[in-house]
Amino acid sequence: MTGALTILPVHGLPEVRPGDVLADLIALAADLADGDVVVVTQKIVSKAEGRLVPVDPALGARAHRPVVERESVRVLRRRGDLVVSETAHGFVCANAGVDLSNVGPGQAVLLPVDADRSARRIRDGLRGRAGVHVGVVVSDTFGRPWRRGLTDVAIGTAGVAAVVDLRGTTDTWGRPLDVTEVCVADELAGAAELVMGKATGVPVAIVRGVDPAWLRESSVRAEIVRPPAEDLFR
Amino acid sequence: MTGALTILPVHGLPEVRPGDVLADLIALAADLADGDVVVVTQKIVSKAEGRLVPVDPALGARAHRPVVERESVRVLRRRGDLVVSETAHGFVCANAGVDLSNVGPGQAVLLPVDADRSARRIRDGLRGRAGVHVGVVVSDTFGRPWRRGLTDVAIGTAGVAAVVDLRGTTDTWGRPLDVTEVCVADELAGAAELVMGKATGVPVAIVRGVDPAWLRESSVRAEIVRPPAEDLFR
Repeated sequence: MTGALTILPVHGLPEVRPGDVLADLIALAADLADGDVVVVTQKIVSKAEGRLVPVDPALGARAHRPVVERESVRVLRRRGDLVVSETAHGFVCANAGVDLSNVGPGQAVLLPVDADRSARRIRDGLRGRAGVHVGVVVSDTFGRPWRRGLTDVAIGTAGVAAVVDLRGTTDTWGRPLDVTEVCVADELAGAAELVMGKATGVPVAIVRGVDPAWLRESSVRAEIVRPPAEDLFR
Repeated sequence: MTGALTILPVHGLPEVRPGDVLADLIALAADLADGDVVVVTQKIVSKAEGRLVPVDPALGARAHRPVVERESVRVLRRRGDLVVSETAHGFVCANAGVDLSNVGPGQAVLLPVDADRSARRIRDGLRGRAGVHVGVVVSDTFGRPWRRGLTDVAIGTAGVAAVVDLRGTTDTWGRPLDVTEVCVADELAGAAELVMGKATGVPVAIVRGVDPAWLRESSVRAEIVRPPAEDLFR
């Protein structure tokens, strides 16, 4: 059918270790085509980049608290064990994106230093290794105010639009659209999450069939992170 | 490939008018299968339900302001022409969900009175009309703090989970997951938006291949809307 999308989980990736080249692992496990968007979860990006820090396992679920404080440039809210803070990247999320799950005991995982750069590295690696021109989204799981449940969003992009600007287009009545900017990178990340699950060991998915107009240089940092001056909730 | 999802735009729906039975229109236009999730944009749900109110077209982009005030139970922020407010449903969104685009001049569209009920009506209608057991998500386009760009989210569900609770499951190291609740309904709505575009006249999409465990009774109101008492940002 015209305009269909397919979302394919990538099975068979090995456990990722610091120093691994993700593009090589993905190229081996996935059958990629030009125009695909490859969504890669932050967890394996951070692991490959060695963004692991030791924590005291005796502290249990609170083991990463000192790391959270260090990774936060501003704390927005605290309640019990939950800290909602802004990171150096400008992301606002729980625990500054520091995570204890899916890593070995005594370790916590930090966000990549620059996930746009991580995405570019994977994109370029796949071009070199598999000869394909793809977009890449690095995704992470964030909460949000007002709505329960977490969704996967983009923290880095390469070769696929972060935000698509519909400014200047018109609705079906020919009037200017008041809805102008769609965050397709977040929608791609969320769509990929639907085939990944949380504990099934599928950290990569392929979205096939995206609008070719979206395949362009991009940056989550420049396009999605809202500057505090234009933010009504900071 | 195991666990793939397909997202299919539904082409050929007529312009929806008050009184139209959406299940009948969708059944005619789409080739549905048991287990599909049908995502329907709020705009045509509201139109079919007659949720249109007259506005003064001479006021231009501000024509819906009096309606926005009426539909808001609490205003969280104002800046220029933008109002971020809470609706009677508990949604926090721009302009209380009142919209001027894609309707005739001199009209504004309100949110459905109860979009979970709207979703149930479409789900039941499709069962009767097409003999298929499907899930239904009613979607709308919302902004959010801290991140630029809009994404489609669920405002009503029937027959498909709103939030999937992963509490009690473990990560690949056997430790309890700290990420517990995934808002699959919002991810389904966003995925569907990727094939709809904003001005292409595709207000319905089918998500095929979702985890059968997600096909259950559900409610956005009960599962996604965060009660003010547990909300750090209200």
